[in-house]
Amino acid sequence: MFKKKDTFMPDWYHQEAPKDSYRSILKWGSQTEYKAPSKELYKLMKEVFEMTDDDFKVKQEMGLEPVEIDVPCKLSKEVLNKFADIVGEENVVTDGYNRLRVAYGKTMVDLMRLRKKIVENLPDAVLYPRDREDIIKIVAYCNEKKIPLYVYGRGSSVTRGTEPVCNGVTLDLSQHFNKVIDFDERNHTITVEAGMLGPALEEILNNAPTTLARFGAKGVYTCGHFPQSFEYSTVGGWVVTRGAGQQSTYYGKIEDIVFSQEYVTPVGIIQTDMFPRCATGPNVDQIMMGSEGAYGVLTHVTLKVFKYMPENRKRFGFLFKNWESAVEAAREVMQSECGYPSLFRFSDPGETSYGLHLYGIADTPIDKFFEMRGYKDGERVLLLGFSDGEEKFAKNVRSYVTKVCKKHGAMNITGYASKLWETGRFRDPYLREDMGDYGLMLDTLECSVNWSNFMDVYNGVLEYCNNREHTICFAHMSHLYEQGTNIYFIFEAKMNDLDEYLEYQRGIMDNIQKYGAAMSHHHGIGKMTAPWLEAQIGTEQLNIYKALKKHFDPNNIMNPGGTLALDLPDSEKRDFINK
Amino acid sequence: MFKKKDTFMPDWYHQEAPKDSYRSILKWGSQTEYKAPSKELYKLMKEVFEMTDDDFKVKQEMGLEPVEIDVPCKLSKEVLNKFADIVGEENVVTDGYNRLRVAYGKTMVDLMRLRKKIVENLPDAVLYPRDREDIIKIVAYCNEKKIPLYVYGRGSSVTRGTEPVCNGVTLDLSQHFNKVIDFDERNHTITVEAGMLGPALEEILNNAPTTLARFGAKGVYTCGHFPQSFEYSTVGGWVVTRGAGQQSTYYGKIEDIVFSQEYVTPVGIIQTDMFPRCATGPNVDQIMMGSEGAYGVLTHVTLKVFKYMPENRKRFGFLFKNWESAVEAAREVMQSECGYPSLFRFSDPGETSYGLHLYGIADTPIDKFFEMRGYKDGERVLLLGFSDGEEKFAKNVRSYVTKVCKKHGAMNITGYASKLWETGRFRDPYLREDMGDYGLMLDTLECSVNWSNFMDVYNGVLEYCNNREHTICFAHMSHLYEQGTNIYFIFEAKMNDLDEYLEYQRGIMDNIQKYGAAMSHHHGIGKMTAPWLEAQIGTEQLNIYKALKKHFDPNNIMNPGGTLALDLPDSEKRDFINK
Repeated sequence: MFKKKDTFMPDWYHQEAPKDSYRSILKWGSQTEYKAPSKELYKLMKEVFEMTDDDFKVKQEMGLEPVEIDVPCKLSKEVLNKFADIVGEENVVTDGYNRLRVAYGKTMVDLMRLRKKIVENLPDAVLYPRDREDIIKIVAYCNEKKIPLYVYGRGSSVTRGTEPVCNGVTLDLSQHFNKVIDFDERNHTITVEAGMLGPALEEILNNAPTTLARFGAKGVYTCGHFPQSFEYSTVGGWVVTRGAGQQSTYYGKIEDIVFSQEYVTPVGIIQTDMFPRCATGPNVDQIMMGSEGAYGVLTHVTLKVFKYMPENRKRFGFLFKNWESAVEAAREVMQSECGYPSLFRFSDPGETSYGLHLYGIADTPIDKFFEMRGYKDGERVLLLGFSDGEEKFAKNVRSYVTKVCKKHGAMNITGYASKLWETGRFRDPYLREDMGDYGLMLDTLECSVNWSNFMDVYNGVLEYCNNREHTICFAHMSHLYEQGTNIYFIFEAKMNDLDEYLEYQRGIMDNIQKYGAAMSHHHGIGKMTAPWLEAQIGTEQLNIYKALKKHFDPNNIMNPGGTLALDLPDSEKRDFINK
Repeated sequence: MFKKKDTFMPDWYHQEAPKDSYRSILKWGSQTEYKAPSKELYKLMKEVFEMTDDDFKVKQEMGLEPVEIDVPCKLSKEVLNKFADIVGEENVVTDGYNRLRVAYGKTMVDLMRLRKKIVENLPDAVLYPRDREDIIKIVAYCNEKKIPLYVYGRGSSVTRGTEPVCNGVTLDLSQHFNKVIDFDERNHTITVEAGMLGPALEEILNNAPTTLARFGAKGVYTCGHFPQSFEYSTVGGWVVTRGAGQQSTYYGKIEDIVFSQEYVTPVGIIQTDMFPRCATGPNVDQIMMGSEGAYGVLTHVTLKVFKYMPENRKRFGFLFKNWESAVEAAREVMQSECGYPSLFRFSDPGETSYGLHLYGIADTPIDKFFEMRGYKDGERVLLLGFSDGEEKFAKNVRSYVTKVCKKHGAMNITGYASKLWETGRFRDPYLREDMGDYGLMLDTLECSVNWSNFMDVYNGVLEYCNNREHTICFAHMSHLYEQGTNIYFIFEAKMNDLDEYLEYQRGIMDNIQKYGAAMSHHHGIGKMTAPWLEAQIGTEQLNIYKALKKHFDPNNIMNPGGTLALDLPDSEKRDFINK
């Protein structure tokens, strides 16, 4: 299937994007890091997309041009002066580049628009608040003047979550608003400003006796939350979207890790309680989490912290004969009460095949050995995992998982592949620039199911995806529960037309909804998925969200323009529930 | 301290209460089960309360008289006919006994009022809905006619939660509304009507292959939720108050066990989602749980179920030298990531002393052995516990707990005492009738803290309690978390005056609040604790509750009269936050 003789490789653009260019905005992560498709992926793409080496000799729409935007700032001098009074003149920015920089996130629609220089929905100004006092004043003033207010963390949204559809101002929190406020070692909690980035938080916790010496820290800790966007997303972004880390099966989603929060809303400051559980009415933390900037600005977050014990990690890997047996094993482990694995990631047959090819396993003696034993390409399923926690707890989880996997016919392939995965865990998004340079897209959509409707959703969505030619589509489960799991769909296609992309993406979302999944397990809803929200949660529940919106933000200044379907016109609603 | 020569014992009233008497309402649980104070407790009471055998020769205010109430039903014939149309004539009840039966709960204020024949706050009628259709029609009609609507499960509330302060109608759900709606073995979930009692649910799950054969059940399960009121409380009551079972440290509070819910509200039916986690806006389950009947009537609850594996249970017991070392051990275990114990119950020195005396350990050779080893009466602390779950998981929890307890100087006293506790786990409330017959009260208040403010709350509240003469007061921790714990205060006193009782109780609540605890960990707020709610959660959060109330119940028909402080006059507010 994969010929070895090809030697041509495209001249991937692996240099720093020109300063102030569109590319510097669309590029994922570090400006000086890259990830080229491997030889194997390159071959696979040519085959599936029916392309030749010649197609990879000319790059297109690279976005190397400088951002030159002629969209006037609609805010008056008076308003801008007022903002300068609040945050300081140096923290009020109105140039085109910075306005575009904070306008988009990192979903394919964002990347395509940047490559095509489609500039829309800019904020009139970008503000860099220095502390919560600044934010309190900004919210009060915006509310008084009815100026739309958006919040930008580090722009990793894949739901158009932060896009300033109604203009106004965007607060860029990652500039200054990223400090530790408190650390309580007795309680195992840390309180940080919402703009803190993942690596900064983890670094601080891993080295607590030094970095948190002023709070008397003695032990070392971890935040337990490692989304793929870890390096370029903020604590605040994790919280308001209800994000999940790659080890959420053990550490929990962010809503399980959050201990307390403070929000500045147009009607006042909401400081939630500091108790692990209580019985004093509805849970306000759970009202504010998932509000995606539409109820108020998240300022301080108190997170649970966990002991940092990397020495206890037990890695494992298994190969199943087919998807059905893997799903049964997954469910059995999750319902066994043996403790939860930390990483627990089941690649479907498509992703397994893709992965083994990309890692150069295909057509090797190992591969032949797998095939001989009945673990056939296109059917077999790869499980990567590890367990964390106290030493014997972690050991027991691995040994119980091993027992269940064997019972379901899986072969133990040791923890080697998990270790490999671990080293590259945050790297995949870097692929998108090299692919995009040749009109290829790589995108993902994810959803949440219970075990009863898992197969319906999985089969139904994949069937739709694979109906398109020149498309690679596969999936994995990576956040598991007693009652169900997420499903994460990944699709790569030869596709460079925005409308075509949108139609395909909407079709996937229609099918996620049609087969009964939740529209998101951890990316949130934003403005992209909002048209599907009401059909999923029901009109009565959307009315609850709207009642809360009216309470917190009577002037609709907070992230307006479709977020969470709060102010979405009926004409944009989609409804594919057919049960 | 305890003399052995006394032989007199009071003539406890251990016979069925007369039919339709006040006593038949105030009595806990089964009409034919009793629990007399032991010889040791009797002696202790005489000593602390400075009473003699003579004081126990005449009973007072036993409530043996028949309930004869002359409080007219204020509902018109037309309204009653309409209710009869909905639920059937036999399910509309207006006699005094049944109206009083559902009016009160089981807090000391309720028991005292019944003994003293203080009849207030009766519903005008009691309805026994047969199914959710009945409830939908009742809610719609009450909303149309602005008739106050209360919901009664089995009356175990200790917060005046169900008291029909504004009259109207009370729905008694436990009569007919107690069936299994669905069981999904793949998802590990069961859906039941809200009026189902604890033992019925547990019995069904323990015997699923028989009792749930129509759903194809193969395995056996447990609900994991065992509050002390287990035998006389309903699933619906657990959920709307955010209750906790005695094994919540492992299984979670009810809000962790609930998977989905349906509520009938004046503005429509709220069916929450069926996903283990999702990122589609605020969590509606967490809005409705804790709403205590003020937003709508809970109809169907879908609960997670757990494997029933009693054979895996590992019991343990330890004696610590003092409270400080026990608290440190508790915190260390909870933060260790070794898995959670299932029962994990730390009696403070007062409760330990009380317990060891009551179990006849005091002054025995065992006791002398404890004392000799430095585990002194009045200082020592008893830990009872067990672990559940998969076999090796449960073993590891016990062995890790053992390690930590030893590190903190505790002595292993085996699992014998835990086993003893287990057999009597639901029996203590039966003590109250025998004590009440002699003007003695036994009551509890509980709260929630984080580890940082634990000692302040514990010491501050006990100091207040012990300031009163003729009072026994002690506490335990029984629901533990990485970040904190509950504290459960128990007080016994020679006290028979309602005003004196209320003043003392309010003083305790003032002190719970003053030292920074949440006003409830699992009893809820109801009408009793409502005056303290705003000072705890803050005006901004109470305003969120009120905004939701206005949305769900614009005519304020749902559990009106102070519940959750939603319609509490400012004059009743208490504020003891002094930080």
